[in-house]
Amino acid sequence: MKKEIYQAPTGAKAQGAVKPKYDKIEEKLLNKLLRLPVLAPPMGNYLPINKSGKTYFLSGQLPLKDGSLGSFKGRLGKEISLENGRAAALQCTLNALAYLKQDLGSLEKVKRVVKLTGFVSGMPGFSQQPEVLNGASDLLVDLYGENGKHARSAVGVTDLPFGACVEIEYIFEVK
Amino acid sequence: MKKEIYQAPTGAKAQGAVKPKYDKIEEKLLNKLLRLPVLAPPMGNYLPINKSGKTYFLSGQLPLKDGSLGSFKGRLGKEISLENGRAAALQCTLNALAYLKQDLGSLEKVKRVVKLTGFVSGMPGFSQQPEVLNGASDLLVDLYGENGKHARSAVGVTDLPFGACVEIEYIFEVK
Amino acid sequence: MKKEIYQAPTGAKAQGAVKPKYDKIEEKLLNKLLRLPVLAPPMGNYLPINKSGKTYFLSGQLPLKDGSLGSFKGRLGKEISLENGRAAALQCTLNALAYLKQDLGSLEKVKRVVKLTGFVSGMPGFSQQPEVLNGASDLLVDLYGENGKHARSAVGVTDLPFGACVEIEYIFEVK
Repeated sequence: MKKEIYQAPTGAKAQGAVKPKYDKIEEKLLNKLLRLPVLAPPMGNYLPINKSGKTYFLSGQLPLKDGSLGSFKGRLGKEISLENGRAAALQCTLNALAYLKQDLGSLEKVKRVVKLTGFVSGMPGFSQQPEVLNGASDLLVDLYGENGKHARSAVGVTDLPFGACVEIEYIFEVK
Repeated sequence: MKKEIYQAPTGAKAQGAVKPKYDKIEEKLLNKLLRLPVLAPPMGNYLPINKSGKTYFLSGQLPLKDGSLGSFKGRLGKEISLENGRAAALQCTLNALAYLKQDLGSLEKVKRVVKLTGFVSGMPGFSQQPEVLNGASDLLVDLYGENGKHARSAVGVTDLPFGACVEIEYIFEVK
Repeated sequence: MKKEIYQAPTGAKAQGAVKPKYDKIEEKLLNKLLRLPVLAPPMGNYLPINKSGKTYFLSGQLPLKDGSLGSFKGRLGKEISLENGRAAALQCTLNALAYLKQDLGSLEKVKRVVKLTGFVSGMPGFSQQPEVLNGASDLLVDLYGENGKHARSAVGVTDLPFGACVEIEYIFEVK
């Protein structure tokens, strides 16, 4: 895991003297006491986002918080509680949104959340993957309402990169 | 797993006095003694189908039969035989078709089956995932002919939601 | 695993008296001492490639070399070294390119590599999936430059079809 981290535009400016201009989606996040994280660089030779027309493919997001997995390292059914797993899925989604913000300038430019595929690292027998992923889905529906509702697959696996407990990839449609 | 189930339009009407009008794809199913199942509500905060233009993304389908996994709970190489796994993959596909019927009104509106991604819950060393998924692929090719032929990925995992032995997600193109 | 193999057009002609005409991407491969492999038929009822408009979905590719897994059978963290895993990911990508060549006539018709999803078969605790998949990503970026950069998900699983150590599916956009 590389050490350097680069700042999302909003995060960097938020510390300056000038009051940052938040878009409406970010304001909803702030009202929930959530903020777009400082982004970590991709952990391999790939792009965080790639586009084909108006379809935006987001690479599998790990629950990194300012560049570190912290308490989101481990497996559901062992080190990671269901509640912590849900928080990890939410964190993956904050990272996805931070990349979108960086790319689009405003999160209001998202037209529709199309699809999520979520992989949950669990002990053998753990089968509550949908509960874990609701941590991501609930946030997106809260932020975008009807346009935030999405198709989804939930899959249980043994191991994810760097020992992350959850990984989620996203397809968005932009305006 | 929630208890309420809601009826697919065709299922509900099929029990009434008026003879239901089946589309040509459903007639093919009936000739195979297969029927579109009663649909279970999504098991989380997501949509069974989401659309981006003419591309329909179906959420990961479990082999639920009228709301229950029944004999499709367990792992290939242990509780689930290869033949039962194939039947589970077929059941996932019936569920996918039932959602499409509900949304499109007629299964004849499918233009093309684009892609399947199938996850098979197996004991360590089980590597016949493609055989299992043929239960889904064979049905789609039988029903739609050349337009039913699709790209596919087959992946083995330890656990799927609620202990299901197979989960399949689908991309369809509609007319 | 079926025995018959069919030849990719370029492979077959390369052995004839007439000097084959390579496209610029193939020339780059030859400069790396890589060649498009002889293609194995799909190992189930599916297509190696399916299209929806200009979007090409490639089925999950295994690291088959002229129809056999050879030394790419096993798990990362046990039989398969990190270096061998990277080579397997590269081999998956050569297979993907061979199918594209067969379909498009020239690899220069690829407009953009959109997305890779890679599944790595590993022992419990193996978490270097991104390193393994760089074997695929590095090649695509070498061949296509900026247009080869892609979104990606890396997932660890226990077992893949026929005991393969890596499976990768691809989305390409063509001109």
